[in-house]
Amino acid sequence: MSIHPIDQADRATLKEQLLSKAMPPNSLGQLGSLSLELGLMGAYSLKRLSLLLFASDHGVVSEGVTHSAQEITWQQCVNFAHGGGACALFASLNQVDLSVIDVGVNHTFSADDGVFDAKVAYGSRNFLLSPALEEAACSKAIEEGRKAVLRAKGKGCDCIAFGEMGVGNTTSASAVAAALLGLHPSLLTGKGSGLSDEELAHKIAVIEKALALHPERDPFSVLCNLGGYESAAICGGMWQAAELRLPILLDGFVVTSAALVAARIEPNLVDYLISCHRSAMSGHQLMLQALGGKKPLLELDMQLGEGTGALAAWPLVRLASHILPDMTSFSSAKVTDSTAVLAKLGLV
Amino acid sequence: MSIHPIDQADRATLKEQLLSKAMPPNSLGQLGSLSLELGLMGAYSLKRLSLLLFASDHGVVSEGVTHSAQEITWQQCVNFAHGGGACALFASLNQVDLSVIDVGVNHTFSADDGVFDAKVAYGSRNFLLSPALEEAACSKAIEEGRKAVLRAKGKGCDCIAFGEMGVGNTTSASAVAAALLGLHPSLLTGKGSGLSDEELAHKIAVIEKALALHPERDPFSVLCNLGGYESAAICGGMWQAAELRLPILLDGFVVTSAALVAARIEPNLVDYLISCHRSAMSGHQLMLQALGGKKPLLELDMQLGEGTGALAAWPLVRLASHILPDMTSFSSAKVTDSTAVLAKLGLV
Repeated sequence: MSIHPIDQADRATLKEQLLSKAMPPNSLGQLGSLSLELGLMGAYSLKRLSLLLFASDHGVVSEGVTHSAQEITWQQCVNFAHGGGACALFASLNQVDLSVIDVGVNHTFSADDGVFDAKVAYGSRNFLLSPALEEAACSKAIEEGRKAVLRAKGKGCDCIAFGEMGVGNTTSASAVAAALLGLHPSLLTGKGSGLSDEELAHKIAVIEKALALHPERDPFSVLCNLGGYESAAICGGMWQAAELRLPILLDGFVVTSAALVAARIEPNLVDYLISCHRSAMSGHQLMLQALGGKKPLLELDMQLGEGTGALAAWPLVRLASHILPDMTSFSSAKVTDSTAVLAKLGLV
Repeated sequence: MSIHPIDQADRATLKEQLLSKAMPPNSLGQLGSLSLELGLMGAYSLKRLSLLLFASDHGVVSEGVTHSAQEITWQQCVNFAHGGGACALFASLNQVDLSVIDVGVNHTFSADDGVFDAKVAYGSRNFLLSPALEEAACSKAIEEGRKAVLRAKGKGCDCIAFGEMGVGNTTSASAVAAALLGLHPSLLTGKGSGLSDEELAHKIAVIEKALALHPERDPFSVLCNLGGYESAAICGGMWQAAELRLPILLDGFVVTSAALVAARIEPNLVDYLISCHRSAMSGHQLMLQALGGKKPLLELDMQLGEGTGALAAWPLVRLASHILPDMTSFSSAKVTDSTAVLAKLGLV
């Protein structure tokens, strides 16, 4: 693999470019900072976002960690692929290419379901009984993630986001994050699709048991033991995207836990991640901190997954990517540059 | 005037509609709440935002409250009207109609400058010497604001935002807000386009003097004594928009201070305001609190004005407006509704 760290050499030049724009210094706040990060990636005037939504089922649902019936995974895949659900609505409104990709759903889709077939298995195993994923299957899912990014790039995307669907996957994501961050699962486990306090306590207890049962802490073992096929695919996809120097829009809880795995194995990945939103799920902020702590663009108490956080933030990322190349400067706009005065006074 | 308060009778029905959507309850956070607010306004599936950017000069600049040369006001108007500046870039990327409207700029524009002529005066007067606006001129600017909204509505907009351009206008906005909120100006005055600590202290002292010189506190007198022509136009525009039941995207510091005046005179206006962003300018949060305290959609430390906060938030508002009418429900998508289980358990 060859993820290059972002070269910081041009930062001063880009900062000067930003200061030359026809506006008071620093007046675009976080959008201005993001324009610099994107500039350093060479990601200017972004046009096409591709959202790769990986779906998979989770054996741990048999432990009663969610109210949602497992069939919802495949039903939602079909719904999304036919333009339904929040993710497809947001994708359509924000002109984003959405691909729904089966890597591990416990269902056989038919051709007219519109779901891309990259199936590795019919769901993960219950990680209280055995490792969730066999190593070979996990590697295969990683490869499917890479291939999906190459397809998206081939279709012309210049920015990438990952989404997920899978009943039970917040339990897996919490377990993975707790293992990698060395934190108690109570700090990283939320009520998902709506649990009572007692049910949340049960979910945490299940994760505690799993952490004791699978003491390995190297990231690939954590992924196999506690992860899911969609997380494995997202890991592979993120590596591929970073190798291609595509900016990666970081979605919420489940996608961020996959990013933790991916960044532990390939630390340079972090340079390509754009923190899109802070989920309402407990512990998401801790994961974001472990990934460099960049302040997310949105803090709207969303907790749906499906890539909806990345989809909602995409128009902001797109705006930011246009500031350096496309915004008029004081000189091109023939506007008096008061910034020169400020610079003399040391106020810039 | 006849701004009707938003009828809350349908709130329970809309909440049920939101719960029926194919996603776990409350998973869209603030976007879900906003979808309800918009639904109550009858603002579904929003398509076209019009940004009315009112420009005006301020006599108080002769007190040395800003580094920016006054000529920047007219130069930026021409720049914006020709597609330059952050506001025109953001408007173009987010497909928003932008009108740059001169209500009080100290310059005579030529026809090919692209600036709409609604000039009432060549700038306000220095409010340390006399009231900033004569009452008749202030009323005329209010009328121009109303007319601009009627033109935008005539061109088919279903949502409206206001922007502003005017060197010195944060001094005026702080003075207006301090007068209306009864707070010391130090709580409501920021460094604008970049002041030193000493210069900020001077700006605050100027405002203090003005507040003593103009002791009237009824909102129309405050607007005339301390306001600007762009603020007067924005007041009129907001009243007109609310009468037409258009959702109003509330921008940053200067626009929000105009909204304070408008809402003091017509309290029902608040129902139509969508809090788009929290400016990095000190005191903006205090103004937002006085307008109902709705959490803004964005907190990106922007402080540019020009309507850029509203422009950046528009795609989120648009998404929210599509949730109730256009998102699939559990039943339409044939997805098992686990919400029913949650409802039984009292978890929704």
